[in-house]
Amino acid sequence: MTDPSPAGQHTLRRHNSALVLRTVLDTPGISRAAIAAHTGLAKATVSSLVDRLIAADLVAETGLVARPGRGRRSTGLAPSVTGPHGLGVEIGVDYLATCLVDLTGQVHDHRVRAADNRTRPPSRVLGATVRAINTALRHATAKGVPVGGIGIAVPGLVESSTGRLRVAPNLGWRELDIVAAVGGRLDRSGLPVLVGNEADFAAAAELGRSPSDGPRDFVLVSGEIGIGAGLVVDGRPFPGVRGFSGEIGHLTVDPAGPECTCGARGCLERLAGLDRIMREAGVWQADPQARPPAATMDTLIEHLADGDAAALAAVRAAGRWLGIALSSVINMVDVPCVVLGGSYASLAPWLRAPLAAELDRRVISAAWSPVRITSSTLGASAAVRGAAAASVQSIIADPDGYLTAAG
Amino acid sequence: MTDPSPAGQHTLRRHNSALVLRTVLDTPGISRAAIAAHTGLAKATVSSLVDRLIAADLVAETGLVARPGRGRRSTGLAPSVTGPHGLGVEIGVDYLATCLVDLTGQVHDHRVRAADNRTRPPSRVLGATVRAINTALRHATAKGVPVGGIGIAVPGLVESSTGRLRVAPNLGWRELDIVAAVGGRLDRSGLPVLVGNEADFAAAAELGRSPSDGPRDFVLVSGEIGIGAGLVVDGRPFPGVRGFSGEIGHLTVDPAGPECTCGARGCLERLAGLDRIMREAGVWQADPQARPPAATMDTLIEHLADGDAAALAAVRAAGRWLGIALSSVINMVDVPCVVLGGSYASLAPWLRAPLAAELDRRVISAAWSPVRITSSTLGASAAVRGAAAASVQSIIADPDGYLTAAG
Repeated sequence: MTDPSPAGQHTLRRHNSALVLRTVLDTPGISRAAIAAHTGLAKATVSSLVDRLIAADLVAETGLVARPGRGRRSTGLAPSVTGPHGLGVEIGVDYLATCLVDLTGQVHDHRVRAADNRTRPPSRVLGATVRAINTALRHATAKGVPVGGIGIAVPGLVESSTGRLRVAPNLGWRELDIVAAVGGRLDRSGLPVLVGNEADFAAAAELGRSPSDGPRDFVLVSGEIGIGAGLVVDGRPFPGVRGFSGEIGHLTVDPAGPECTCGARGCLERLAGLDRIMREAGVWQADPQARPPAATMDTLIEHLADGDAAALAAVRAAGRWLGIALSSVINMVDVPCVVLGGSYASLAPWLRAPLAAELDRRVISAAWSPVRITSSTLGASAAVRGAAAASVQSIIADPDGYLTAAG
Repeated sequence: MTDPSPAGQHTLRRHNSALVLRTVLDTPGISRAAIAAHTGLAKATVSSLVDRLIAADLVAETGLVARPGRGRRSTGLAPSVTGPHGLGVEIGVDYLATCLVDLTGQVHDHRVRAADNRTRPPSRVLGATVRAINTALRHATAKGVPVGGIGIAVPGLVESSTGRLRVAPNLGWRELDIVAAVGGRLDRSGLPVLVGNEADFAAAAELGRSPSDGPRDFVLVSGEIGIGAGLVVDGRPFPGVRGFSGEIGHLTVDPAGPECTCGARGCLERLAGLDRIMREAGVWQADPQARPPAATMDTLIEHLADGDAAALAAVRAAGRWLGIALSSVINMVDVPCVVLGGSYASLAPWLRAPLAAELDRRVISAAWSPVRITSSTLGASAAVRGAAAASVQSIIADPDGYLTAAG
């Protein structure tokens, strides 16, 4: 459908501002004249827009660059590394993480604190979240880094229209307005806060790392105690109509399978999640609540590397169930690539073969176009990076809006 | 991402041409002045674009309409009912169908011929397809109706970048270039021919019927011998990265279930397709190849209406399996509405309760937002209508391209 309303003057400046900033980000070192040639905008328009972007420290001059075939040289432009950063926060099941991401996508100050968020009430977890954000803001101020917005990743279903958390089964949370609970208690008021699903943010981070040659269409499947997925289609995250897409952990893979915390039976999470793998592998013998997660993951990988039969069988079974679920996803949505994320990335050497066998067998299009399987190299930091990057992307998509908000 | 290239003059005229035509389609009877006010385009530009659209018989003048508050009256504009029509063709498993769709979406000349396309070689089926198209073109010419393009629906996976049919399991076809096989043998050369998946076209037809108040986000699931699905997200068909989306018939719903023609095990099609329902209901006792499909469907519905225990149990089981598959789709993609199409529409009174029970139980977001279930009223004609409408939509999306091609 064609948008029936034409662009007004104000909308046009917003659009052109974003166009110029995007051009600088894509081609660091580009001159004003080259931006004009590339975008078709008038040189005077480009100059005026660049001046505003420089004043807001979104763009910086990089010194003189040679102009081929001419005697004179012109000033190059690049995204400002001292410009607004996004602050990412991840409320994990058993940790709180923060990091900063600058305009170029570089990550700074990644910090992870262990925190058993399953056993504490939401109000206490959100209190700790506020403290973690305020600490990160203080560190940023001390280093002279401006923060332009905050992105919060949660392991649950977040309604995109309202930012409301509807349910986070592995935290035991329901119906929480995290923006309201956190936004009003920060040391700096007025910062935009956005809340999203951790797997969606992780998928966006995976995309952000490889703008040119990486996969543009994939499903990232992130395996921990819960299993989440993020769909990326044509280079864009696909959050679903209401923001609830990617609940791969609750795909039914065995209707006669074990009961799930969600109330259904035979969900993927129960058959291929870390709880199941660790138990089948004999790594968790006793109360799973008492385990230190990182240590058990190291133990599992040791057992696998040693060729322990129980560990190998446990991961092989998880790979098969994962393959059944991902075959359904690919048959339905048609994304040609799977990215293994979270703990699945560490298990990839053992997961890959049983997973590939199920995909080969069950994906209709695999007959002429095998599904590509890759592993994330971001590991557990993908979601918090993606959350920080999302708040930077909001600025890049609408620099005029940022300028107005920043005064 | 912002498109880094600005609109050139030629692109701009194409864009504005489409904008004006879309405005006339959305508001039949609108005047040139009102189009200018609505779009923000200059009156002279609108007049010149409208003149071109009238010359191509895409738009027609409808006589004088009153202008509130003024003495003068202006000429109204509407889509031309004698303008270019789309010719739709559906190659079904056991029929060939054709129809015409005009610029307003009205269907004309819907014809269905029984044809056992499963038992004949592809070359003979495509020969019959060419004859059906040529017959429809002759009828159109006799009635003075111009045909602007052809859309062909097939029950298989069609690669969107090439229009190539990769596989149609229920026809036993593989690797066919239908555009080449059909396009060169038509009585009229140069007509654009597009080929697509029948469920994708059916979903588009479902959308087209209710532009304002109908669902904009849904999964249409069309049950016959095979089971296909079409996803519509934010009012647009979602064909997947390569055009292979919607293969819901091959979602694994029971890993220990029966073998499928696709080579896998426990596919939905084997457990909820008409073959299974008819056998479980005792309607097909003998060789299913010998059955007349319409008659057996009538028989099944009689049995259901009579409260026959085997028929009721067969449809209830199919509804449960369908609910398991659709729960996976909704958990993964987040579309809040299911449209039952094809034979499932006729079975809806008996399918709905077991289907709804599984959705309630398995869809995470159903806890606060129950999945809506509706039935298609287009029945078996949805795909052929959608195919015809798709070729009309190509003209509407780019009237300048049509003008150029038409000379």
